[in-house]
Amino acid sequence: MREVYQSELELISQELAQMCTKVGRAMSMATRSMMDVDLQLAEAVIAGDEEVDALAHEIDDRCFNVAAQQQPVATDLRIVMSGMRMSSSLERMGDLAKHVAKQTRLRYPKTVLPPEVQPIFAEMGTLAEVIVTKTASVIVTRDLDLAPDVKRHDREMNRLHRDLFNIVLGPSWDHGVESAIDITLLSRFYERFADHAVTIVRRVVHIVSGEPYATISLEFPDWDA
Amino acid sequence: MREVYQSELELISQELAQMCTKVGRAMSMATRSMMDVDLQLAEAVIAGDEEVDALAHEIDDRCFNVAAQQQPVATDLRIVMSGMRMSSSLERMGDLAKHVAKQTRLRYPKTVLPPEVQPIFAEMGTLAEVIVTKTASVIVTRDLDLAPDVKRHDREMNRLHRDLFNIVLGPSWDHGVESAIDITLLSRFYERFADHAVTIVRRVVHIVSGEPYATISLEFPDWDA
Repeated sequence: MREVYQSELELISQELAQMCTKVGRAMSMATRSMMDVDLQLAEAVIAGDEEVDALAHEIDDRCFNVAAQQQPVATDLRIVMSGMRMSSSLERMGDLAKHVAKQTRLRYPKTVLPPEVQPIFAEMGTLAEVIVTKTASVIVTRDLDLAPDVKRHDREMNRLHRDLFNIVLGPSWDHGVESAIDITLLSRFYERFADHAVTIVRRVVHIVSGEPYATISLEFPDWDA
Repeated sequence: MREVYQSELELISQELAQMCTKVGRAMSMATRSMMDVDLQLAEAVIAGDEEVDALAHEIDDRCFNVAAQQQPVATDLRIVMSGMRMSSSLERMGDLAKHVAKQTRLRYPKTVLPPEVQPIFAEMGTLAEVIVTKTASVIVTRDLDLAPDVKRHDREMNRLHRDLFNIVLGPSWDHGVESAIDITLLSRFYERFADHAVTIVRRVVHIVSGEPYATISLEFPDWDA
């Protein structure tokens, strides 16, 4: 019984890491669909979001059942209670990847990205992947060494988000209001994607340290001291 | 002991309803700060978000402690596990109100809202208040009669969101790209605010009915049958 319990707790982390991989791949594909004006790829991301959602519900059920049947306390209780909230964040990250892909589809066969913003979105796509890869690693290993990295990447994402504002508001922008709005919303999807990763990593810090979630900052990794 | 336990469960719902009231008032004040170009009001919303966050953490602690000490099952376990997720949604709704207020501050002393979009934002503000009022009522009474209403208001919010797109993309828009971007982001904040309310109401349906959250639609209130 004890072994089943431990392996259920293990599975929660493993499935959360699987969700990371899925949403990372979805965001990467969504980015590529914009770059290459690839409708098929966009459709694959949109259809694939159901799998992300299904995995989220599997995790939620597992957390609920462990809580109901095993009455965990301390770290184990934090795993099941935070697990549900991490699955919510990851589900939302999947939605954001889907939103990006839908923008490719909406403008198809036109490109959604004017040439001058393409390098920034390429960078945002790469960053999104790096962030979820590190987030998955933090979830599975509970090694918090990578946590400040995730925060740093989030700041890089914010900088790119601001760079895009400067471009669409700059004097040389000649793609009109519709394109400016597209870029603004797309950029916000990447920025929110990174925010959710930070939230997830903070929840892992909470699981490991027991520190209240609200007071956890990834700026100064003093939980490591 | 049993009485303490029941009153703790009660308190979770009451505090969630309090959060509804707080974020509803915040969104209402934020809307008014835009309409009246009122910096002081905007600052009050921004500062007040800390209270919303503090209440969220109080709810989270309460949920955690009830789970750890009382080992609830069935409906009671759903209350504590969903309670934490509802507090996350409400915290996010508070952030969205703060984002609106920050936009007032950013453009101050200029108005952020050109005259032709003001009536729509006024309507969005009213709708946001109505939605959280009904959401609070659903949380406290667990009477699901109001649940389809919340979904209907969410659809109205989506319609207003689309109306704003049509205005900023229309031929008579002459306020430039920056203002179009402001309107787009602001409009999205209201739209997301309503989405979160729908999520919360779906969680109450889950608590009451035990139906898996994923399959709950507020479109056809068959849980009422």
